[in-house]
Amino acid sequence: MENNDFLERLFAGDARTIARAITRIESGAAGASDLMKAVFPRTGKATIIGITGSPGAGKSSLVDKLALFYKERGERVGIVCIDPSSPFSGGAILGDRIRMATLGLDKNVFIRSMATRGNLGGLSRATVDAVAILDAAGFDKVIVETVGVGQDEVEIIKTADVSVVVLVPGMGDDIQAIKAGIMEIGDVFVINKADREGVLRTQKELEALLSLAHRPDMWNPPIVRTIATENKGIEELAAAIENYNGFVGTDAGSNLTRKRSIARWRLVELLRERLLSDLLNQNGTTVRLDSLADEIAEKKKDPYSAVDELIGLK
Amino acid sequence: MENNDFLERLFAGDARTIARAITRIESGAAGASDLMKAVFPRTGKATIIGITGSPGAGKSSLVDKLALFYKERGERVGIVCIDPSSPFSGGAILGDRIRMATLGLDKNVFIRSMATRGNLGGLSRATVDAVAILDAAGFDKVIVETVGVGQDEVEIIKTADVSVVVLVPGMGDDIQAIKAGIMEIGDVFVINKADREGVLRTQKELEALLSLAHRPDMWNPPIVRTIATENKGIEELAAAIENYNGFVGTDAGSNLTRKRSIARWRLVELLRERLLSDLLNQNGTTVRLDSLADEIAEKKKDPYSAVDELIGLK
Repeated sequence: MENNDFLERLFAGDARTIARAITRIESGAAGASDLMKAVFPRTGKATIIGITGSPGAGKSSLVDKLALFYKERGERVGIVCIDPSSPFSGGAILGDRIRMATLGLDKNVFIRSMATRGNLGGLSRATVDAVAILDAAGFDKVIVETVGVGQDEVEIIKTADVSVVVLVPGMGDDIQAIKAGIMEIGDVFVINKADREGVLRTQKELEALLSLAHRPDMWNPPIVRTIATENKGIEELAAAIENYNGFVGTDAGSNLTRKRSIARWRLVELLRERLLSDLLNQNGTTVRLDSLADEIAEKKKDPYSAVDELIGLK
Repeated sequence: MENNDFLERLFAGDARTIARAITRIESGAAGASDLMKAVFPRTGKATIIGITGSPGAGKSSLVDKLALFYKERGERVGIVCIDPSSPFSGGAILGDRIRMATLGLDKNVFIRSMATRGNLGGLSRATVDAVAILDAAGFDKVIVETVGVGQDEVEIIKTADVSVVVLVPGMGDDIQAIKAGIMEIGDVFVINKADREGVLRTQKELEALLSLAHRPDMWNPPIVRTIATENKGIEELAAAIENYNGFVGTDAGSNLTRKRSIARWRLVELLRERLLSDLLNQNGTTVRLDSLADEIAEKKKDPYSAVDELIGLK
């Protein structure tokens, strides 16, 4: 059961309480359960903006400038950053502190990095929960930023109301940029570092690619040019995000389809984590898992037979 | 039970049989079980090379040239490419065909893309299984190439014998390249497109970063400059890979520690997938899952209560 005071402070947007709530949901689905049951009915007011793109595209600067733009307009902004760095590196925490200094640490901006926590997974689930907490805590905009570009990151970005894909000039000449599969998830495209050579070419190539794609909702994703470090193009980006959000709002049917598919994905993620942790929390299972891993490493047993054994322990 | 003929053709390296085997393990852990139990004892001979880096770094060209180098040396090379593209885009299959044409389609080179298959996961497990199949099929080198850079991709690359991280000049000026956490997993670093401006600066910055990192095994990761499109630096890369592999071979203790942690990760991945599929394969669970997802989308129920319900069905 959640303490009522705790929930009250959370819903009032108290930064320390939000931080503690996110730490709790990071610890695992079991610990998160009661808290999230209380949080869920308060969600649905914030606009969730997902921002992705390859490392080096300048996403952090872009997110910071966009957050400042919203803040100056009088809105409250939460930022959740998914960082695949090693939990041992401490890079995420240090990065948060640097960015908090830039953004101005006050009630209206909150930033938090979610790092990979060992191999028990749950990062996607924890990230979506953190977004829900910020939503319930009254932030007008919640920005989810991924540092990496992988399958989990793509799934997480898909849960946003608006997905923004950030590119840089000179990347478009490489077919890998397309293969990364992020083209299909962008509602808005940004060419950042637009003062660099090759911006026109990147724009042309992106336009060509987008003209090939056919979205079921008939939305034509705009391309916004920015120079985040000089604060250029940020207002245009905010306008493009708002346009898409308005466009979706006019089609309640397709919006519900999207929300259903997000809910299903979320449910499966949660289920996956719960099933594993329920099994591993049984007496002796973790010890057995470790000794089976040793046997596999020594090639005395194959992983599939080992799993049969662990499932048999249920 | 696996057909003996099928296994014989697989272990003899027959391309069509290998392709069918990989398709089977992609379908899910349950279908993969018998096949992988037969495959596992035949593994351990190939050198597994993991290659990662951001989109646009030219990884595909680099992998192709490295594969050709091995092939010309008389070795057999398998390539497994992890591609987060939508399974609907068909990009992966098209890409394979183009690359097969470049590499020369014969018994000595095999290439296969593994794409994200819906939201039931299992991509990491399937990829590691595909590598094991190629190993058992007698390939001397198996190259695992990730298109994205995300947490799953980092985990998969860690299961390789040698991990290669590919950078390009001009990326080093961005702190995000560091934050992507790929620095810590590189046994060998490549600066590709080394004819571009800024190569010296990237090299200096990379050297500075690497001097800060302290590896438990005391290995000092080399930096190799390549221009993959002109076939430059490939021999040096192959030599660096061989050096690291020789270095690891001299320290059986730390090698076993690494193999244990890989085995444990693999076991957990497999367990996660099996637990979920066992539950979803029960009569009526999938239907209940879908209707609960609808209730969540309509905000009539929170995801945590829905999971409690589904767990209760066990």
